[in-house]
Amino acid sequence: MRAVTNGDLDDLARGAAILGTGGGGDPYIGRLLAASAVREHGPVPLVALDELPDEAVVLPVAMLGAPTVMVEKLPSAEQIGLAARSLAGYLGKELTHIACAEAGGVNSLVPAVAAAQLGLPLVDADGMGRAFPELQMVLPTLYGIRATPMAYADEKGNRGILDTVDNHWAERLVRSAAIDMGCSAAISTFAMSGAQARESMVPGTLSLCAELGKLVRETRSVRAVAERLRGRTLFTGKVIDVARRTVTGFARGEARLSGLDTDSGSELVLRFQNEHLVAARDGSTLASVPDLICVLHTETSEAVTTETLRFGQRVTVIAAPADPRWHTEAGIELAGPRYFGYDIDPVGVSA
Amino acid sequence: MRAVTNGDLDDLARGAAILGTGGGGDPYIGRLLAASAVREHGPVPLVALDELPDEAVVLPVAMLGAPTVMVEKLPSAEQIGLAARSLAGYLGKELTHIACAEAGGVNSLVPAVAAAQLGLPLVDADGMGRAFPELQMVLPTLYGIRATPMAYADEKGNRGILDTVDNHWAERLVRSAAIDMGCSAAISTFAMSGAQARESMVPGTLSLCAELGKLVRETRSVRAVAERLRGRTLFTGKVIDVARRTVTGFARGEARLSGLDTDSGSELVLRFQNEHLVAARDGSTLASVPDLICVLHTETSEAVTTETLRFGQRVTVIAAPADPRWHTEAGIELAGPRYFGYDIDPVGVSA
Repeated sequence: MRAVTNGDLDDLARGAAILGTGGGGDPYIGRLLAASAVREHGPVPLVALDELPDEAVVLPVAMLGAPTVMVEKLPSAEQIGLAARSLAGYLGKELTHIACAEAGGVNSLVPAVAAAQLGLPLVDADGMGRAFPELQMVLPTLYGIRATPMAYADEKGNRGILDTVDNHWAERLVRSAAIDMGCSAAISTFAMSGAQARESMVPGTLSLCAELGKLVRETRSVRAVAERLRGRTLFTGKVIDVARRTVTGFARGEARLSGLDTDSGSELVLRFQNEHLVAARDGSTLASVPDLICVLHTETSEAVTTETLRFGQRVTVIAAPADPRWHTEAGIELAGPRYFGYDIDPVGVSA
Repeated sequence: MRAVTNGDLDDLARGAAILGTGGGGDPYIGRLLAASAVREHGPVPLVALDELPDEAVVLPVAMLGAPTVMVEKLPSAEQIGLAARSLAGYLGKELTHIACAEAGGVNSLVPAVAAAQLGLPLVDADGMGRAFPELQMVLPTLYGIRATPMAYADEKGNRGILDTVDNHWAERLVRSAAIDMGCSAAISTFAMSGAQARESMVPGTLSLCAELGKLVRETRSVRAVAERLRGRTLFTGKVIDVARRTVTGFARGEARLSGLDTDSGSELVLRFQNEHLVAARDGSTLASVPDLICVLHTETSEAVTTETLRFGQRVTVIAAPADPRWHTEAGIELAGPRYFGYDIDPVGVSA
């Protein structure tokens, strides 16, 4: 993939929503935003991570907030560009590349919107190889790269800059601002050099999203998706209950699935904070963060995001291994089950 | 008064706490901060409002938050300077003068700390002639002067810049940030030209604070204070109950006073949000915002701030007229009783 064109957006969004592990936003909204930007500004050149010059100025952009809100209050193209331009102005640096902070139906597409607006190329990579709910949960944090100075902006024109003593403080302050802004804000954060990006980001994520999306479109096979991600199927069932609340700026809750086919008679519980964190079958944990837990429609293999989960859906849950750096001690501390309040060791897919 | 010297600080803080109408911070803390700054950097030159050149770059600085917290978590001198310097950097302008946003035991002294640190003169004025709890409640708002770009900083080194579509949005966003920072933050806001300051600020506030403080020290007479402010005594009594909670970033609550002397048999209720908003005697309102309601120790005439009000204190409550611009329609809308949720017309002191 050498550019993001209008023809790529469907597959890109579809695949990104799978890697979003329930979060990262609705692919329909991501597609709408990117299609409009590409129509106006033309295709967005894509640059491989290993082609980045050391001295490149790379700026990841994303939407931050509760995806439950984002389906009603759509991000505006202006606020995405505003967040990027505000930070560029504050840094006093000429940006050379836009990047993707996390995979997800919205968050893999929003960087294309910013890149199109600013006339900059996009890096074929992301900051985690999946989606996670909190700002500091990106691999660059493990490499000591600072989230701030960062910028955030709403659709009304309000914007801010943060410069904090660590990445956890950045999360805390921007989360409150996003809540005030209506539980959704555009952010630009983790500005870094090309050398830093090559070291800390996950290469090829956008290409992988497009490939996964194409696979889904052509095969409609959950098994094919699981195999491409070197994962496995955890459970096939029907959604029988969703308890979901938008609190502390996140979509938090749990879903219960009643088993069908070979899983008949069993129950799977999914616990989520924007993203799926833990999957437990009849009380025993089958998979947990940092590994990927993805819920797909059994018939179509399209991803079901946590904000669109609802009673009666027939879904298949798969799990897939995260980037190995998430399985280091520091990675587990940053985004393992204990950080989210589950007193368990991480349950890996190959465990 | 041509400079703020160490010898002026006691009177200045004492008088400022009276104009603070219960808020604006504890004068003891204000004195400590300013004394240390003046000792280190020398006296702070004071400039009259009408001496300001049109093209001066005037920056008001203050502490924002709940005064209940500030008595335990003292502001640091560094955070005050940091807020001012952060904004100057963002504006890309050379500051020429520091100013005072509101009168108060801390907030009349904090600008002297910033001025001393930055080596700048201080303007003998303030933004309201009293204290009010919310950011947008300054006379410059009535003149269309924007609160943002503004900066805020905590004592840990976290800082931010806000640029909002109106002054109410600035209040909303900085309040949440201040809550995250521990219910107290240093801010620099309402940067303005000398011409704007001359038009929109209240002249001579710091001199008035020093004069009031001297009056208290020399006379210990509540009546003398009331006369100097062209106000009158509302009630003399004993505090019999204080219901105070630190919520939504403010010290909110009410105090009940049982009458003594000529007020024996009556009860006065004071309702406050950092500052005293309404005083009602036996159910009928005696005074309300925007006019000043000041609680003084009956014996010493020293101000009692809302966070230090407690059972058993013998106090005298006085009321005094606010700057006449607060009594315009726009002034009442900005800081009248209805804004604070009291369904009454303002009750003025001379009413």
